[in-house]
Amino acid sequence: MSFNTFGHLFRVTTFGESHGPAIGCVIDGCPPRIPLREADIQPYLDRRRPGQSRYTTQRQEPDTVRIISGVFIDEITGAQVTTGTPIALVIDNLDQRSKDYSAIKDKYRPGHADLTYDIKYGLRDYRGGGRQSARETAMRVAAGAVARKIVPDLKIRGALVQMGPHRVDRARWDWDEVDKNPFFCPDAKLAAMLGDYLDDLRKKGSSIGAVIEVVAEGVPPGLGAPIYGKLDGDLAAALMGINAVKGVEIGAGFRAAELSGEENGDEMRIGNDGKLRFLSNNAGGILGGISTGQPVVARFAVKPTSSILTPRRTVDRYGHETEISTTGRHDPCVGIRAVPIGEAMVACVIADHYLRQRGQVGDTPAWPFAPPAR
Amino acid sequence: MSFNTFGHLFRVTTFGESHGPAIGCVIDGCPPRIPLREADIQPYLDRRRPGQSRYTTQRQEPDTVRIISGVFIDEITGAQVTTGTPIALVIDNLDQRSKDYSAIKDKYRPGHADLTYDIKYGLRDYRGGGRQSARETAMRVAAGAVARKIVPDLKIRGALVQMGPHRVDRARWDWDEVDKNPFFCPDAKLAAMLGDYLDDLRKKGSSIGAVIEVVAEGVPPGLGAPIYGKLDGDLAAALMGINAVKGVEIGAGFRAAELSGEENGDEMRIGNDGKLRFLSNNAGGILGGISTGQPVVARFAVKPTSSILTPRRTVDRYGHETEISTTGRHDPCVGIRAVPIGEAMVACVIADHYLRQRGQVGDTPAWPFAPPAR
Amino acid sequence: MSFNTFGHLFRVTTFGESHGPAIGCVIDGCPPRIPLREADIQPYLDRRRPGQSRYTTQRQEPDTVRIISGVFIDEITGAQVTTGTPIALVIDNLDQRSKDYSAIKDKYRPGHADLTYDIKYGLRDYRGGGRQSARETAMRVAAGAVARKIVPDLKIRGALVQMGPHRVDRARWDWDEVDKNPFFCPDAKLAAMLGDYLDDLRKKGSSIGAVIEVVAEGVPPGLGAPIYGKLDGDLAAALMGINAVKGVEIGAGFRAAELSGEENGDEMRIGNDGKLRFLSNNAGGILGGISTGQPVVARFAVKPTSSILTPRRTVDRYGHETEISTTGRHDPCVGIRAVPIGEAMVACVIADHYLRQRGQVGDTPAWPFAPPAR
Amino acid sequence: MSFNTFGHLFRVTTFGESHGPAIGCVIDGCPPRIPLREADIQPYLDRRRPGQSRYTTQRQEPDTVRIISGVFIDEITGAQVTTGTPIALVIDNLDQRSKDYSAIKDKYRPGHADLTYDIKYGLRDYRGGGRQSARETAMRVAAGAVARKIVPDLKIRGALVQMGPHRVDRARWDWDEVDKNPFFCPDAKLAAMLGDYLDDLRKKGSSIGAVIEVVAEGVPPGLGAPIYGKLDGDLAAALMGINAVKGVEIGAGFRAAELSGEENGDEMRIGNDGKLRFLSNNAGGILGGISTGQPVVARFAVKPTSSILTPRRTVDRYGHETEISTTGRHDPCVGIRAVPIGEAMVACVIADHYLRQRGQVGDTPAWPFAPPAR
Repeated sequence: MSFNTFGHLFRVTTFGESHGPAIGCVIDGCPPRIPLREADIQPYLDRRRPGQSRYTTQRQEPDTVRIISGVFIDEITGAQVTTGTPIALVIDNLDQRSKDYSAIKDKYRPGHADLTYDIKYGLRDYRGGGRQSARETAMRVAAGAVARKIVPDLKIRGALVQMGPHRVDRARWDWDEVDKNPFFCPDAKLAAMLGDYLDDLRKKGSSIGAVIEVVAEGVPPGLGAPIYGKLDGDLAAALMGINAVKGVEIGAGFRAAELSGEENGDEMRIGNDGKLRFLSNNAGGILGGISTGQPVVARFAVKPTSSILTPRRTVDRYGHETEISTTGRHDPCVGIRAVPIGEAMVACVIADHYLRQRGQVGDTPAWPFAPPAR
Repeated sequence: MSFNTFGHLFRVTTFGESHGPAIGCVIDGCPPRIPLREADIQPYLDRRRPGQSRYTTQRQEPDTVRIISGVFIDEITGAQVTTGTPIALVIDNLDQRSKDYSAIKDKYRPGHADLTYDIKYGLRDYRGGGRQSARETAMRVAAGAVARKIVPDLKIRGALVQMGPHRVDRARWDWDEVDKNPFFCPDAKLAAMLGDYLDDLRKKGSSIGAVIEVVAEGVPPGLGAPIYGKLDGDLAAALMGINAVKGVEIGAGFRAAELSGEENGDEMRIGNDGKLRFLSNNAGGILGGISTGQPVVARFAVKPTSSILTPRRTVDRYGHETEISTTGRHDPCVGIRAVPIGEAMVACVIADHYLRQRGQVGDTPAWPFAPPAR
Repeated sequence: MSFNTFGHLFRVTTFGESHGPAIGCVIDGCPPRIPLREADIQPYLDRRRPGQSRYTTQRQEPDTVRIISGVFIDEITGAQVTTGTPIALVIDNLDQRSKDYSAIKDKYRPGHADLTYDIKYGLRDYRGGGRQSARETAMRVAAGAVARKIVPDLKIRGALVQMGPHRVDRARWDWDEVDKNPFFCPDAKLAAMLGDYLDDLRKKGSSIGAVIEVVAEGVPPGLGAPIYGKLDGDLAAALMGINAVKGVEIGAGFRAAELSGEENGDEMRIGNDGKLRFLSNNAGGILGGISTGQPVVARFAVKPTSSILTPRRTVDRYGHETEISTTGRHDPCVGIRAVPIGEAMVACVIADHYLRQRGQVGDTPAWPFAPPAR
Repeated sequence: MSFNTFGHLFRVTTFGESHGPAIGCVIDGCPPRIPLREADIQPYLDRRRPGQSRYTTQRQEPDTVRIISGVFIDEITGAQVTTGTPIALVIDNLDQRSKDYSAIKDKYRPGHADLTYDIKYGLRDYRGGGRQSARETAMRVAAGAVARKIVPDLKIRGALVQMGPHRVDRARWDWDEVDKNPFFCPDAKLAAMLGDYLDDLRKKGSSIGAVIEVVAEGVPPGLGAPIYGKLDGDLAAALMGINAVKGVEIGAGFRAAELSGEENGDEMRIGNDGKLRFLSNNAGGILGGISTGQPVVARFAVKPTSSILTPRRTVDRYGHETEISTTGRHDPCVGIRAVPIGEAMVACVIADHYLRQRGQVGDTPAWPFAPPAR
């Protein structure tokens, strides 16, 4: 994870600003001969795409992805596949609404990176947030779509589990509900009330935070590197690195602070199939930074959108006290669209560790129970 | 963060197992001409050292650090200083109590990395936890002591803010209390009762989780790299990578999910000194992955020790169901000793980003208010 | 240097194939507030551009570069400058001549990467060489143009010093000649005869190798990291990584094997200006992997183009013996166009080490003679 | 390759100065379950060890290596094997001859890194060369011994092919001769005269350069990453990064500049075994940065020792002109002991790329001729 690249063997570098001509990414280190077409990526982008409901920004972007490099027709199968060379993906920016930025270009929105980009670099592209715009996350979603194809049988799903004070009732959890409401909410009853809740917030010119949960099934046991390359360490970096995220937890997470050793440790038995079976999953599928084979469960907290209509006290870049009120197109709850982004980041981390494990160890040992060949 | 190295310009690589001859680390990329003696490092190790109270493991290790390389006498000042070449630090393992491991070497403690090391590598050093032992963290503390010397005026302090159901009362927070009790607890009243609480747990052969808070003051504004090298992303990786950590949050953290945009965004004013002043610090000193100049505030949750006396259901490495009960020397609350470790990881991340910022941008621009030279 | 990215702080990632829609690169870690327009890059691309003389491939590509991201108008100076975020550069491929590849798609040109891409990845984009095409080097030249702007007073020039058996006479070296002939040859007399020499080769359907020399003046002393991050080590990787390069040397290079210690070591005196002065430059400006302040001198050998008209014995990808003869548009001496590419790689390495040095040490110490502040 | 670490998946970090208590390295990313004892490493160190003939420095160091971490007994086989965690190797410095450094500590030897360490860092450990001492290379040799065990059937051998004006006659090349003379010379006739040649140089207080050739057989085809992670690029960095090396070449190397395309491209046929067969090896086993399966052939030039008895003109660190004459224990031809070092660096690079290839592609495709499964 350095600068604008993440990953060690499966490496993603993104570029582009909100109001430049395009955004894009370069995926390096992808295995060859993996079938890949735009149609494999587009559905994930469509889930993240703005303007799909009145609960997200009204910017109209088709977010049509183009594969610029790294694929070719495999003459034996006739399929378009990856070649092992860098896969460049590009999405053109179409709806860079021409607009007068004079009201905001010299002021810092409280809670926004406006300020810190100016501090760090001495200037910033203030048009639509420039590089710090959530628009960059479209490329994460695109890269995640490629990552998902690398690990066989990997299934990654995310859901909004809290918005403001409202939490899902896990007894009502239904993955099928997630795509039936504009909130990615697995609890139909909660979803039914979130619309009114958000409409009310939007009318008040306010915004609200959220918590997202991502569950990865089919993660091979043994992924993760000890100490500083831990699977959970890399997941934490990947999820905390999503815009507006302020907290990350794995499995029992912060609740683990209240558990006793007896409550926390997931006991083990042998299933009827002779395989290892856990009696619980407080570990969230990771022990010692290495995957256990249980589902990997990660959760992250997203702060409320900083761009709100309500006037706030701030300063301008010349040292004067002032007020700011943001009138642009913004998500009242950026947490909603963070669902596909979180899924994508988890996919990229798992794909990277899948290749790293194959590099260091070769095929994952069948251990325990069936010792690897010596 | 890869394998056993972390950092990009300030790079730390650790090695060693709990019951091998020694543990150590190599610090690469440290600036030259920084005064450095063992005496600069030892006090931090002494804070983390086991066996100092009956609330931590009774393993007796003086943890005396030796500097093997990377320092020399500066003839002009007469001080021993860093040379810019790799600083190797070594701590000999002295109390590798000779012991019969037959009861545990083939069984997996629930909640412990015993299992996953076996899965990943096909074998593991089971003596005292081997590489996954908390002993490795001594080297993080040592590296952190060096990191603290790199950033002028940096002050990093940590405290235990929760143990099981017991939380500090922030109205009673007193940093001076932290070093007056064996729990690094800033709330004297809470500290007074934690002794009995832990004694009771220990007698029951149980253990408990905790939450640690680390506050870094004097962090220059502008540290952090956008998108995938964010300061909070790297902090999340560093803290989640500490043994037994299951959650990390910055500033308001998970509470941000319940905040409105008005509540969350930290308003700004100009102080009497003409400098930027924030009216709150929900951001935890970081916006858009870049430091604001406010104190950086990070919190992490530590799960309870997995090595407990209470028998638990588990399996052995040959596929048989069995039970396990751990009788060795273990901390009933590993969260306690996580305080100096958390401080150290924060120090390493900030030092690394301090050098990265100096590399990319040179001296941090005085912006805002006093524009950088062009 | 990993996969398709090079550099540590100044990082360049390239993408694209010869006959895809475009080639491009992402430059990450560039300092902010550096004036940058397409016009700063284009002249370097024009020097490398094919089709400018009958001695290089006749592919017609304007190679017009577009800056997609990472620049903005600095309101204080009015100049377009870098913002510190990723700079994406794109060149569209226009002259992807529609062609029948059936004669070559299953055969391996001797001396060409056709074979090894197939071995490594199990397939390859055979259209115009795909990813292994020299076309990729346009992006190196573009990145080099940006790199040149980072280090103040840096001046990098390259020249062809040998083609086949013909070597420049160093007594006739004139940098001004380099841009006056299509061979980048500093020896006017040699340049005058190379045209006929190459015409003859081209008529015979043959090709020839070359040696290129790159000289970097204004390299600050102190650049380079000891042991594995040496300036000469990184230069060697960068130059050896140019297509068709088979050898790299610094300063006296291979001739150093024949020198005695007295002949080789560059003696030092104090100049009239009180500054360090060397009596020779066998070191090529680098001692112990660190720049001395003298000009950095690197040389590299380029093998002859593998794509020749003369039929050669080879095999096809199905295991049959066959012959191959390449009729496409190819440079009879790829070494010629390697001159601007070599310059660019040297620029990228020096810019990267300039930032790394600033990161680790801050401003280069004035030492020797004026000790740095302690 | 950054700072004091090299490698991407097989990573080696070294530390230690010539006259400190010890030198060492940490090998990270080594596959688990590889048999490894000190006895696997020691023979390689013994080949590099000083003081074995009168043609190398008379420093007496047994160079006994100790494995500090990363190995354990595999209970199934009973062998000591790697565990997949960091392997720390340490060699104590025993013969740090107490000595008066006042004659040299403030002066710069022409051709030596004395100067540049002072420039870069503002101070240096002048005792025996400190970090820039050839002593550091012992750890490269140790790491190389581990690397050799990773790639099945890999055989790496080096030889001195030139010393001053004297070159081996390749018609007399006999690998068995290499270990029969103190020069690692494969040409018995040449070896017989080098002793007198060196004695004469030593008496004159002079030194001489050399060229070393390393040949790696059994390198699997398909190793290397395109563009910036090329196998030859990484070899060039690794070999150029050895102390005193000024040039590196692969296969035909600089001679390729004089070859025509017909002469250079290695033609291919199908052997009686149905396998690919090359009719020559100008490529040195690498095409497009990827191994072909032919022996990898690398050559590097080593400059003469800078520490010579003959007085040279130089300056001191306070800006005064002076003379220097080095009287310590030094190799008259450092090229001799560069042979095992060069072998080791080649081994490390190949092991790293072996793991990288396994990570990205899995088992190397059988292609060409037997297409990989799709």
